[in-house]
Amino acid sequence: MKCVFLIFFINLLPLYAGKSLTRDGSYPRTFEDIKNEIAGYSDIAKAIINLAVHGKAQNRSYERLAVFADTIGPRLSGMKNLDAAIKYMFSALREDGLENVHLEPVKVPHWERGEEFAMMLEPRNHSIAILGLGSSVGTRPEGITAEVIVVVSFDELHKRAQEAKGKIVVYNKPFISYGETVRYRSQGAVEAAKVGAVASLIRSIASFSIQSPHTGWQNYQPGVPRIPTACISVEDAEMMSRMSLRGIKIIVHMKMGAKTYPDAPSFNTVAEIVGSKYPEQIVLVSGHLDSWDVGQGAMDDGGGAFISWEALSLIKDLGLRPKRTLRLVLWTGEEQGGIGAEQYYQLHKENISNFDIVMESDEGTFQPSGLGFTGNAKAREIVKEIMTLLQPINVTDVYDDADGTDIDFWMRDGVPGASLRDDLSKYFWFHHSQGDTMTVQDPNQMNLCAAVWTVVSYVIADMEEMLPR
Amino acid sequence: MKCVFLIFFINLLPLYAGKSLTRDGSYPRTFEDIKNEIAGYSDIAKAIINLAVHGKAQNRSYERLAVFADTIGPRLSGMKNLDAAIKYMFSALREDGLENVHLEPVKVPHWERGEEFAMMLEPRNHSIAILGLGSSVGTRPEGITAEVIVVVSFDELHKRAQEAKGKIVVYNKPFISYGETVRYRSQGAVEAAKVGAVASLIRSIASFSIQSPHTGWQNYQPGVPRIPTACISVEDAEMMSRMSLRGIKIIVHMKMGAKTYPDAPSFNTVAEIVGSKYPEQIVLVSGHLDSWDVGQGAMDDGGGAFISWEALSLIKDLGLRPKRTLRLVLWTGEEQGGIGAEQYYQLHKENISNFDIVMESDEGTFQPSGLGFTGNAKAREIVKEIMTLLQPINVTDVYDDADGTDIDFWMRDGVPGASLRDDLSKYFWFHHSQGDTMTVQDPNQMNLCAAVWTVVSYVIADMEEMLPR
Repeated sequence: MKCVFLIFFINLLPLYAGKSLTRDGSYPRTFEDIKNEIAGYSDIAKAIINLAVHGKAQNRSYERLAVFADTIGPRLSGMKNLDAAIKYMFSALREDGLENVHLEPVKVPHWERGEEFAMMLEPRNHSIAILGLGSSVGTRPEGITAEVIVVVSFDELHKRAQEAKGKIVVYNKPFISYGETVRYRSQGAVEAAKVGAVASLIRSIASFSIQSPHTGWQNYQPGVPRIPTACISVEDAEMMSRMSLRGIKIIVHMKMGAKTYPDAPSFNTVAEIVGSKYPEQIVLVSGHLDSWDVGQGAMDDGGGAFISWEALSLIKDLGLRPKRTLRLVLWTGEEQGGIGAEQYYQLHKENISNFDIVMESDEGTFQPSGLGFTGNAKAREIVKEIMTLLQPINVTDVYDDADGTDIDFWMRDGVPGASLRDDLSKYFWFHHSQGDTMTVQDPNQMNLCAAVWTVVSYVIADMEEMLPR
Repeated sequence: MKCVFLIFFINLLPLYAGKSLTRDGSYPRTFEDIKNEIAGYSDIAKAIINLAVHGKAQNRSYERLAVFADTIGPRLSGMKNLDAAIKYMFSALREDGLENVHLEPVKVPHWERGEEFAMMLEPRNHSIAILGLGSSVGTRPEGITAEVIVVVSFDELHKRAQEAKGKIVVYNKPFISYGETVRYRSQGAVEAAKVGAVASLIRSIASFSIQSPHTGWQNYQPGVPRIPTACISVEDAEMMSRMSLRGIKIIVHMKMGAKTYPDAPSFNTVAEIVGSKYPEQIVLVSGHLDSWDVGQGAMDDGGGAFISWEALSLIKDLGLRPKRTLRLVLWTGEEQGGIGAEQYYQLHKENISNFDIVMESDEGTFQPSGLGFTGNAKAREIVKEIMTLLQPINVTDVYDDADGTDIDFWMRDGVPGASLRDDLSKYFWFHHSQGDTMTVQDPNQMNLCAAVWTVVSYVIADMEEMLPR
């Protein structure tokens, strides 16, 4: 040990040669110093990559996720499957030997879709595949039967407001991007209700479809009647649009058993590797454990949750312990708008100065390309430097802005944030649909994602200084 | 007219200069003569392409198909929708001004799926999307509840025959090619029944899935018990396979109301442009009008049927009348194994020497690449030469072997055959599934397909000699 220490000391000598001391007795670090510090993690980064991609941990995050997703299935907030998922993870994280494994209680919305179906009655009988949108009211038990008005935009709806009264509004807005198009899902019912419609059916927010509806959360507005709202497939929206443009009268019958229950108890699931030197300082890696009630939630956000767990497992397996605490949080209630994360933030924000970085993977675990990062210019330079450690797997890009509903609360208050960036080209083919299953996951892509996630979180947790903010 | 004739005659002079007469007084034609004859169609080919791709007929086959598919929906043999489709086309072809529009009665199988569902009960409740396979028996009214055995191949089933008794066999055979993998759909029930299974569930014959089952015909064997059989999604097959490999007991409950009724009356739909010089000689262009009972049958085979109609429309619109009769046949009962086409063959085979070529488009109308051709070497050379006329749209390839259930009967007896070749990369994503709708069709691709189909059929119908066989 002494010998090692001596070598280490000698190595540092050129770094600090000729520099003046700061007030607390340390030398002020130049970016060159930081670069050298990061370069010093090269062997550790290689060891992480090797273990995750080629070694004993190869395919582990995929296989763990497969067992979890097959065992639990989809897990919507408020439903028993989510409770089972949380219990499952609590046990799994303890069995994995992680530290401070615990659950932090929160309240989450409890909405259930119940039975639902829709049938086009005119111009011909045709079964319409629907998925009620989260928070939608149900129909009365006998359902709604009404004529359809098809619009391509809110503008068109407003122009044709007189026609919409008493009708079912079908929005046939083609997918541009999730950010751009999702407002038809979230505000479609409100805008339809404002012009007197009795229900709304929304073309799924999906960039490709095999007659597959995609659900998601929607929002009512105070003072606006709450009308039932569901998504339909791209195909059915396009068909009704074609019929409507031909002047054909369309009548749809729909029934939805959707119901909102009182908020339900749930938990954010937490596990740690406690820091060796600054245990009070936190590098947070996360994904959300809840999902929609269709498919298996394997992509949204099973993948993100399980590569986050994998980061702690890999570090533990390598016998590493960073200076700061590496904290895994598996959020609950994300799909309802980051409900679990908001309560976590309220509970822990007094400690905000100790949050070094908040990381979330919630946009797929496909072929990774780099990291989205939110933080100041100096922090960005440091993160870029850290990403050079991922040269061996060629995942080195740093993009503007981290994304993640659950980490937004912290980033808004100035905490640096990071999100995994990967090949999103098929993400919205499966998102919130029955197609979100293990079939879309690729073990090797998950290995690469886990390697990126682990190297970044470990190095940030272990560097001498927190990221500047 | 005289003047034109004179110019034509003068043009022919160099062609026949110095050649000896054959017995019937004409000159024997060299391949050079035929090449010249084909080159003479260059302007007509350009006119067809121009009308189909850029002119007044642009998008017509797509738009006609959209109205048809939206109005009629899916149209399985034996069901009222198919009758409606045939009536619709009979009227549409007459209104289009085609000649000899008529229906030729045939008998087709009549199978209906009725209500059906499947639910995994163990290890957890999970709704399994199924589509019963055509000709399957139903379950008894209370359904079947049995343990599952998952196999990846017939070989594995035979090795584990003892285990299969009393169980539901799940085949999880990954898609290799339709030709290679479809036997699991067509023979899966028989092989399962032979080892005492009570039902079979077959991973859909699909190269991509969004939790979408794909139906299709299957065959029982005399002396082998008839057990209910359905297809399931790739995702559910993979999940049950993973569970099974983990040693987990799977129990599935399934109910199928499938029933076979007596053969039903149906019709092949026929229209013509009668030949000007050899009206008894036939160039047959075709697609099938029946479809599966899911989606809209827009791809299989709406596209093929409607570009075949389009060929006659384009020729009529250009004021052309080929020497031979151009006959459009819209087959019925294709999905049950070319039932309508076989009866057509039996009825017309005495006239086989007058069938110049039989053409069918039944493998999509996506971006075309050329023509599959079955015929002798000399005929192939002629067809290759004809395809050079499609240089303006760069669709000139001639592939070995035409494909088409409905034209096989003729090709086996030596009649040359042609099928449209196009980009099949997504064909089996939609094939026989709810995803076979107008959404998969592209108007421009259909224009190109129609242009290919029209040029080839017109030129063959108008050349002085029939294709050699």
